[in-house]
Amino acid sequence: MSERLSDTARKTTLEPLLETGWVLDETRDAIKKEFKFKDFADAMGFMTRAAIWAEKWNHHPEWFNVYNRVDVTLTTHDVNGLSALDVKLARKMDTLAG
Amino acid sequence: MSERLSDTARKTTLEPLLETGWVLDETRDAIKKEFKFKDFADAMGFMTRAAIWAEKWNHHPEWFNVYNRVDVTLTTHDVNGLSALDVKLARKMDTLAG
Repeated sequence: MSERLSDTARKTTLEPLLETGWVLDETRDAIKKEFKFKDFADAMGFMTRAAIWAEKWNHHPEWFNVYNRVDVTLTTHDVNGLSALDVKLARKMDTLAG
Repeated sequence: MSERLSDTARKTTLEPLLETGWVLDETRDAIKKEFKFKDFADAMGFMTRAAIWAEKWNHHPEWFNVYNRVDVTLTTHDVNGLSALDVKLARKMDTLAG
């Protein structure tokens, strides 16, 4: 279903994300962002809400949490790189993190 | 409130944990374990339940999730090493993952 983002899609959908704090992973075709929250409960609240969308779209993040911090990495294993699903989930996470 | 585990406590409370899959971190005084679940929803269910106990005890894990895997590291920053809180949370997580 997924395919790797085309050069055009990278310009139109990926670049705007890079202005909201997402950065390209230097080691593989992935994007990552560090989210900071008020405290642990807020961070877990974010993860729980994001998890519901991830499951709904069957597209799951790699993420690390310690206290109020959540480090997210998004990539699409099926296509060995970034797909439209990563952009969709990244935007949703930005919205959820408010 | 917390203090680092004494040598005696390490024998009596830490060693049993090391038989359930927890391992000592080689780089610092911490324990870690990789939990595997059926799928992402199960892994998130575990994290959500564990988070409630972590918050209740004001003692938070460092953890990484990708799909059905949750890698947990426990240590007590206040004492720069393992305390009884880590043992308590590790046991709770084993029960929850049960």
